[in-house]
Amino acid sequence: MGWVYAFSETEGLGKELLGGKGFALAEMTRLGFPVPPGFTLTTEACRAYLERGAFPEGLWDEVRAQVERLEAATGKRFGGGGEGLPLLVSVRSGAPVSMPGMMDTILNLGLTPDGVQALAEATGQPRFAWDSYRRLVQMYGEVVLGIEAEGFERLLDRAKVLAGAERDVDLSASDLERLVGEYRRLIEAAGRRFPDDPWQQLEGAVRAVFESWNNPRARTYRRLYEIPDDVGTAVNVQAMVFGNLGDDSGTGVGFSRNPATGEKGLYGEYLKNAQGEDVVAGVRTPQPLERLRESDPGLYDEIADVAARLEAHFRDMQDFEFTVERGRLYLLQTRAGKRTPEAAVRIAVEMAEEGAIAREEALLRVDANTLPSLLRARIDPERAPEAAAEGLPASPGAAVGHAVLDAETAESWAGRGLPVILVRPETTPEDISGMYIARGILTARGGMTSHAAVVARGMGVPAVVGVAALSLNLEERSFRLGERSFKEGDVISLDGTTGKVFAGEVALSEGGSGEYLHRLLEWAEPHRRLGVRANADTPADARRARELGAEGIGLVRTEHMFFDPERIPWVRALILAETEKEEREALERLFAFQRADFMGLLEAMDGLPVTVRLLDPPLHEFLPPLVELERKEAAGELAPGEAKVLAQVRQLHEVNPMLGFRGVRLLLVRPEILRMQVAALLSATRALREQGRDPRPELMIPLVSTPEEVEQALAVVREAFAEFDLELPVGTMIETPRAALVAGSIAPLVDFFSFGTNDLTQLTIGISRDDAGHFLPRYLDARTFAHDPTERLDEAAVGRLLEIAVREGRAARPDLKLGICGEHGGEARSVHFAHRVGLDYVSASPFRVLTARLAAAQAALAAS
Amino acid sequence: MGWVYAFSETEGLGKELLGGKGFALAEMTRLGFPVPPGFTLTTEACRAYLERGAFPEGLWDEVRAQVERLEAATGKRFGGGGEGLPLLVSVRSGAPVSMPGMMDTILNLGLTPDGVQALAEATGQPRFAWDSYRRLVQMYGEVVLGIEAEGFERLLDRAKVLAGAERDVDLSASDLERLVGEYRRLIEAAGRRFPDDPWQQLEGAVRAVFESWNNPRARTYRRLYEIPDDVGTAVNVQAMVFGNLGDDSGTGVGFSRNPATGEKGLYGEYLKNAQGEDVVAGVRTPQPLERLRESDPGLYDEIADVAARLEAHFRDMQDFEFTVERGRLYLLQTRAGKRTPEAAVRIAVEMAEEGAIAREEALLRVDANTLPSLLRARIDPERAPEAAAEGLPASPGAAVGHAVLDAETAESWAGRGLPVILVRPETTPEDISGMYIARGILTARGGMTSHAAVVARGMGVPAVVGVAALSLNLEERSFRLGERSFKEGDVISLDGTTGKVFAGEVALSEGGSGEYLHRLLEWAEPHRRLGVRANADTPADARRARELGAEGIGLVRTEHMFFDPERIPWVRALILAETEKEEREALERLFAFQRADFMGLLEAMDGLPVTVRLLDPPLHEFLPPLVELERKEAAGELAPGEAKVLAQVRQLHEVNPMLGFRGVRLLLVRPEILRMQVAALLSATRALREQGRDPRPELMIPLVSTPEEVEQALAVVREAFAEFDLELPVGTMIETPRAALVAGSIAPLVDFFSFGTNDLTQLTIGISRDDAGHFLPRYLDARTFAHDPTERLDEAAVGRLLEIAVREGRAARPDLKLGICGEHGGEARSVHFAHRVGLDYVSASPFRVLTARLAAAQAALAAS
Repeated sequence: MGWVYAFSETEGLGKELLGGKGFALAEMTRLGFPVPPGFTLTTEACRAYLERGAFPEGLWDEVRAQVERLEAATGKRFGGGGEGLPLLVSVRSGAPVSMPGMMDTILNLGLTPDGVQALAEATGQPRFAWDSYRRLVQMYGEVVLGIEAEGFERLLDRAKVLAGAERDVDLSASDLERLVGEYRRLIEAAGRRFPDDPWQQLEGAVRAVFESWNNPRARTYRRLYEIPDDVGTAVNVQAMVFGNLGDDSGTGVGFSRNPATGEKGLYGEYLKNAQGEDVVAGVRTPQPLERLRESDPGLYDEIADVAARLEAHFRDMQDFEFTVERGRLYLLQTRAGKRTPEAAVRIAVEMAEEGAIAREEALLRVDANTLPSLLRARIDPERAPEAAAEGLPASPGAAVGHAVLDAETAESWAGRGLPVILVRPETTPEDISGMYIARGILTARGGMTSHAAVVARGMGVPAVVGVAALSLNLEERSFRLGERSFKEGDVISLDGTTGKVFAGEVALSEGGSGEYLHRLLEWAEPHRRLGVRANADTPADARRARELGAEGIGLVRTEHMFFDPERIPWVRALILAETEKEEREALERLFAFQRADFMGLLEAMDGLPVTVRLLDPPLHEFLPPLVELERKEAAGELAPGEAKVLAQVRQLHEVNPMLGFRGVRLLLVRPEILRMQVAALLSATRALREQGRDPRPELMIPLVSTPEEVEQALAVVREAFAEFDLELPVGTMIETPRAALVAGSIAPLVDFFSFGTNDLTQLTIGISRDDAGHFLPRYLDARTFAHDPTERLDEAAVGRLLEIAVREGRAARPDLKLGICGEHGGEARSVHFAHRVGLDYVSASPFRVLTARLAAAQAALAAS
Repeated sequence: MGWVYAFSETEGLGKELLGGKGFALAEMTRLGFPVPPGFTLTTEACRAYLERGAFPEGLWDEVRAQVERLEAATGKRFGGGGEGLPLLVSVRSGAPVSMPGMMDTILNLGLTPDGVQALAEATGQPRFAWDSYRRLVQMYGEVVLGIEAEGFERLLDRAKVLAGAERDVDLSASDLERLVGEYRRLIEAAGRRFPDDPWQQLEGAVRAVFESWNNPRARTYRRLYEIPDDVGTAVNVQAMVFGNLGDDSGTGVGFSRNPATGEKGLYGEYLKNAQGEDVVAGVRTPQPLERLRESDPGLYDEIADVAARLEAHFRDMQDFEFTVERGRLYLLQTRAGKRTPEAAVRIAVEMAEEGAIAREEALLRVDANTLPSLLRARIDPERAPEAAAEGLPASPGAAVGHAVLDAETAESWAGRGLPVILVRPETTPEDISGMYIARGILTARGGMTSHAAVVARGMGVPAVVGVAALSLNLEERSFRLGERSFKEGDVISLDGTTGKVFAGEVALSEGGSGEYLHRLLEWAEPHRRLGVRANADTPADARRARELGAEGIGLVRTEHMFFDPERIPWVRALILAETEKEEREALERLFAFQRADFMGLLEAMDGLPVTVRLLDPPLHEFLPPLVELERKEAAGELAPGEAKVLAQVRQLHEVNPMLGFRGVRLLLVRPEILRMQVAALLSATRALREQGRDPRPELMIPLVSTPEEVEQALAVVREAFAEFDLELPVGTMIETPRAALVAGSIAPLVDFFSFGTNDLTQLTIGISRDDAGHFLPRYLDARTFAHDPTERLDEAAVGRLLEIAVREGRAARPDLKLGICGEHGGEARSVHFAHRVGLDYVSASPFRVLTARLAAAQAALAAS
C-alpha cells in the first residue's frame, strides 16, 4: 500500500485512510460528478509523519508522480513557466471525522511570479491573477509560516485606503501587485521567506496540514466532540477551479435539506465572483441559493439535481461546496451536513418515512444528548417587544444574558455563574471555548454557513449571525445595535429561531417537543430495555416528567422542600431547638409540609414508583453562612436572636461538608428527623389509598458506606412501618466508593440500589464540583481528563465501581433493582454504559428524560 | 453435649465454651490447686439464651444437678434451712477473652433469712453473717434488679452515721440487720422484690450475667479491645469461701511477675478480713503482698509457690485471685495478667531467655501498637519540682493536662483538642470512654489492681491511683491535693512511673527505649519481609527515625517546610505575585530554603531512600483564613496590604478543600512550583554527591487520579532531570479511589506507588477527619463502624482498593515498588494487611517505626 492515491483510484479504501473529504471526493469522482482531479495523502502518511517528524520514505516520490498525472489530465504545468494556464492546486486537510473550521486550507498553491503573468495572460484578467497570488501569499504566510493574520489585514486595509477602494474587489491589479510586495516584506521581516518554487510551496503546505492536526484549536474541537487524538488527518491536493473569474463564476454551499429546520429540499448560499474562503470566513454575506431559481434557473436545477443525487448516494443530508467557473459547475467537497438537533430529528424521521433508511438507523442518527435543547426556551412572538436588530437565524432557541465581547470574558463571567451572550464581529476557532459556555451567540458578519453558525448549531447554542446593524467597539467595550448603544455587561436577548435581537431581558416561553420528536421516541420505545425515570421534587416537575415519558420518579430530594421560604424557619427551629417541646413543634410542622408534598407527588405519579430520598445535606446548609454571620458580628450588626444561630452555625461548621455530617449519618444521630420523614410518607400513602388511588412510594437512604448504617436506619424505618401497618420498598443510594465495594453485604438488606453517580464521581476522583473550576477547564484543554467526569460517567473508575456493585449486589440478592439517579442518568453515553452493565433504570432531570429514552434504545440497538 | 459442666469434668473443653475464667478454674482443679468446687454454664448456653430470650431446654435441670453435687461435695445445703453452714455460691461471668470490670459478679448467693441465722450460728459471727447478707442484697439489687447503687450507698452512709461508725466494719450485726431491712424497702419502693428462694436468686443472677453481655459498658470495652460481639459469656457458679471471717482470713490478688515493670517474682496485694470485691472496687486500700513475708511467711511461700506453678503451667505471667479462709488458701481465678507495654516486653524477652517460651512466641506476645508508648515522655526526677502529692504508680508514663472531674467533661474537652487529666475519687466502668481519651488518670482511692490501674495499664494511659491526699468536691468542680486547692481546668502533671503528682505544667523529657525492647526488636529483624520507613519532614525527625530503625524516609511533606515562619512570607509572595519578577524572586527564595532542607534530610539519611512528596495542600492554606479576613473587613480593621490578600483568599476559597485545587492539580496549573521543588532536590543531591556522600532521593507526585496527570507532571520533571543531567526514581501517591482503580495504567509510568491511606480512606468512605467528630464517636459506640477507619485500615473497602492496585500495578510493571505512607503504616493490624497483600514497605511517624518493625515480623510469623 502506498501513501498517496488519486481520487479516481481509491476503490476499496475507506474513510479512515482517506479522511472524510478525500473519501467523498473519491466517491463523487467514481460516480461521475464534476469534481476537479486531485489526489489524497492518507491519514497513515500523517501518522507516520507525526511520529517521525519527517515524511516517510517514498511519500514525496508518490506526490511527484500524482502531480505529473494532474498535469497530464489538465494539460497545465505545475508552477506554470511555460505557455497556457499554470496548474494551481488547493491543499486541504480532511480527517476521518468532519472538523469544520478547525484545520487549515491553502488555495492557489503553485503560483509563482512567472505563473501570475501566465495566469493573467491566459485568462485576460491580471487583477484576478494578482488577487489569486495575494491570497496564496497571505494564506501561506499565515498557515505555513505562522505570521499573524493581523499584519496582512493591516496592509490590505491600507492598500484599500490608498486606492480609495471600499471592498477588496475594488483593488486593481497593480494595487494587488504592490500589496504582494508588501506581504513579502512582512514575511521577511519575521525572518521567514515565501517560496517561489511550487514544490517547496507544496511541501510546506502538506507539512503544515499534517502539523495542524495538533494545533490547540484542533485539540479543543476534538475534545468537545470526543474525537480521539491518534487518528491523524489526510491531505487532499486538488486542481483549482476559480469562482472569482467574473460574474459568470461564483462559489457556494448547498444542503440537500435545511440544516436548521430539517425541511426537505435544496438549501444554501451562493456568492458571485468569489472563492470559497470568502463564504466560509463570513467576510462577505452571500445570497440564498433560492435566488438562483430566478437569476440562473439552469444552474439552480443542476445544483438541486446534484444535491438530490448526493443525498441518495450517501444516504444522509449532504452539505456540499461547489464552485462555478465561467458557468461550469464543479463540486469541491461533500459531507453529511451538520444540523440543529431539531433538524436532525426531522431529517431522520422523514428519511425513514421516505424509505431511504431503516427506522433503527433513524434512531441511531440522532444525538440523544441534544434532545433536551428541543424543549429549549423560545421567545413568544406575540409577547415580544420590538426587536433592536435582526440577523440570520443561525441556531434556534432563545437566550437572555449579559453581553460579553470576547471569549475570555465569556469564560470568566460564566465561571462566576453569570449567563452570558457572546457578541463578536465574527467568530473564529479561537472563540470555541467561549461559544461553548455562552447562552447565545451574536455576530455582525457571516452567513448561515459561517463559522459561528456551523459551530453554534453543532453545540446547540442559540445564535443570530450576520446582524448588519451590529457594530462593536472593542477598545471601549461597547457595541451598537442600530441606533441603540450598549456597554459590555448589559443584558440582551436573542431568538436564534427568528433571528431577532432585543435590548434587555425578554420573557422566554418553554419550547414544545414537536411531532417529529414524538414519532422518533415512539419508534424508540420497543427497543429499549432500560426503564427511564425522572428526578423531580415538586408535583409540577413530576407532571412534566410524566408527559415527557418518565415511568416514575427515581429521586425526590426531600431537602428541596425544606428550602421553601415558608418552611425554612421551621427547619431552623428544629436545628436550634433547646427543649423537647420546641423540637416536637418543629417536627410537627415539617411533618405536615412533607406529608402535603408527598401527597402531591404521589398523586401526580399515580400508579408509578416514586423514590423518596431521605434528608441528605448537612444541617448547616439550612442556616445562614458562617462568613455572613461572622461579618455581622464583627461589624456589631448581629440581631438579638442571631448570636444563638451563630453559635450553632459554628458548632455545625465543616471544613469539607461534602464529606460531612449528612445523609444517613445525620439520620442516625437525629433519628427523630428520619422518623418524621418516613411517617409523612406513610401517612400520605395511606390517605391516597383511602381515596382509591395507587401511590407507589419507595424509601431511599443516602450516603451509606456500611451495612450497619443501613441496618440501624432500617430499625427506625421498620418501627414506623409497624406503626402505620404499611411496608414500603426500601433501598440505598450507592454513592460512596465504599458502598460500591461492600455492595454484596448491603444488598441482602434492601430492595434496590440507586447509584448516586454525582457524589460517587466526586469521591472516586477526589474532586468537588463546587471547586473544580480552579483546574477543570485546564484539565479538559490539556486532556488530563478525557471528558468532564461530572457530565459523562467516568467508566474506567466510577464505572468499574458500578460494575463491582452490580455484580456483587445481584449475587447476594438476585432480585435487587438497580438504577442511576445522578446527572449521568440523562447523558447518552452514560446511559449506554448503564445498559451494558445491566441496570434496570436510569433517572434524569425531566427534560433529559428524552435523552435517556432515546439513548436507552440506541444502546439496545448497538448491543443487538 | 450439655449446657453445664463441673470444674472437674471439663477435660477436652476449651476456652471458647468455658470462658477464660471457667477454663482456668477447670485447669486449676484438674491440676490439684486448692479451688472451691463449682461448675460452668457454657458460652453456648449464653448464646442460646440471648437468641431465644429464655433458657434453652434442659439447662436448668443440669444446673440443679450440679448444685446437688456441690451440696454433696461440701456437705452444705443450698439456701441452708437445715443444720450446719448453708451452701453459698458466687456467680461470675467469664467470657473467652478477659474483660475485667466489664461484667457483673454476685457473691454470697443462696443466703436467705434462715441461712443468715444458720451462718451466724455455725461461724459464731453474726456480724459476718449479716454483712454477707447485706452484700448479697445490695449486689443483687444493683445487678439483677437494676436499682441505682446510689440508693444503697446512701442507706449505708446513714447507717454509719447513726451507729457512729467510721468504716463499714464498725457496723454491728444489728446495724446490718436493720440496714438489710432498709435495703429491702428500697427495692420494694422501686416495684421489685429481693427473692428469699435461693433458686430464684440463682436464676435471676444467671440471667443477669447472660444479659450483661450486651450492656453498654461491655459493648464499649469490646469495641476498644476489638472483641467480636457474637461470642457470649460463660457463667461460673462456685462455692463461696470467706476472706472476711476474721484476721486469719483475707483476700488478695497475686501476679507471677510485676505487671508494671515486668520484673520476675511474686507481686500483689492482700487485704485482711475482706472479700475480693473490696480489693477490686478499690474501696479499701490493700497492703503489698511483700508484707506477708514477715507477718505470715508460710502463707507468703505458699502463694509464691502457687504463682510459680501457675505461670509454669499456663506459660505466661499470671494474675490470680485468692482468698484465705481461716488460714486456708483458696484460688478463685487465674488469668494471663494485664501488663504495661513495658512489662509486656520485659516478660516476653525474659520468658524466652528462661526457655519458657520460644523467641517467636515472645515476638507474638507483645502488642506492637503499644511500643510507641515505651518512648512516652517521662518527668526527669532531677529537674522535677516538689510533688503536690504522691500515690501508687499504676500505669507508667508522664502526662500534663487540664484536670477534669468526670468522663463526660474529659470527652468534651478532649474533643476540642485540649489535653486532659481525668481526676476521680475512683473509676468505674462508666468512666471507660473518658479514660481512653485522657492523657493521664488520677484517683483518690484504689490499689495497683483497682479498676483504674488495670484499665489504664491496658490502655497505656499514665495513671496514679490511691492518692490519699486527693479529695474532690464534685458540686463545686474543685479538688484538693494536700494543702493546695485546684479548680477543674487547672493544669496538673503526673508521673505514672513514680506515682508523683504536680501542680501546673512540669517539663517532660523523652522516654528511652530500654534494653528489653532493643533485644525484642533484634529478634524480630530476621523474620520481617516488609521494609520499614518513617514519615519525617526535618533532619531531627529523620535522625530520630534512623535511630529507631527506619530504613529510609517514606514521606517528606514539603509543605511543612513552607509553613516555617521565616518562609511563609515568601510563599505568600509567590501566591500574590502580580509580576513575573515578583514571582521569580519568591521562587528563588523558596528554592534556597528547600535546597537547604533537602540537604539536611538527605545527609541525615545518607545511603537510605528519602521519598519527597511534591507540594500537596491547596494554596489558600498558606494564607490567613477567609473568615478572619472577612471579620476584619467588616470591622473596618483590614490593614492596607490585606485587601489584596482578601481578594486572593476569596478567589482561592474552596467549599471542600480536601477535594480541591491541590497536589498534582496545583502542580500542573502552576508548573513553576513543581520545577522549583524538583530543581531544589536535584541541586541538593548533586552538592552532596560532590561531597562524597550517598544521597538517595525519590520524587513523589501527590493526588493523581489519571495517568495523564502523571505524564504531564513527568514532562516537567524530566526537563529538570535533563537540566541537571541527573535522574531520580519517580513515583505517585495512590490516594484517590480512581488512582487505585486505574493503577494498571499508571504503573508503567512510575517506579513506585506509595499508598496515601489517609486520603484514600477519607475518599473511599466519604468522611473528613476534620469533621467526623459530629458522628464518629456515636458510630463507634453503636458499631456502625467496627473500627475507626482513620486509625486502622478498613480492609473491606480501602484494603480492597489496595489489593486491586497492587495486583494490576504489578501486572503492568513487575518491578514496581509498593509502600504505605498513611498513618496506617504504623498501626499493627494494618501492617499485617500490608504484609499479606505483598507491599514492599510501610512508612510511619518516627515512634511508630517500632510498631511497624514488630508488626511486620509478627505478620511474617503469622503467615508462616
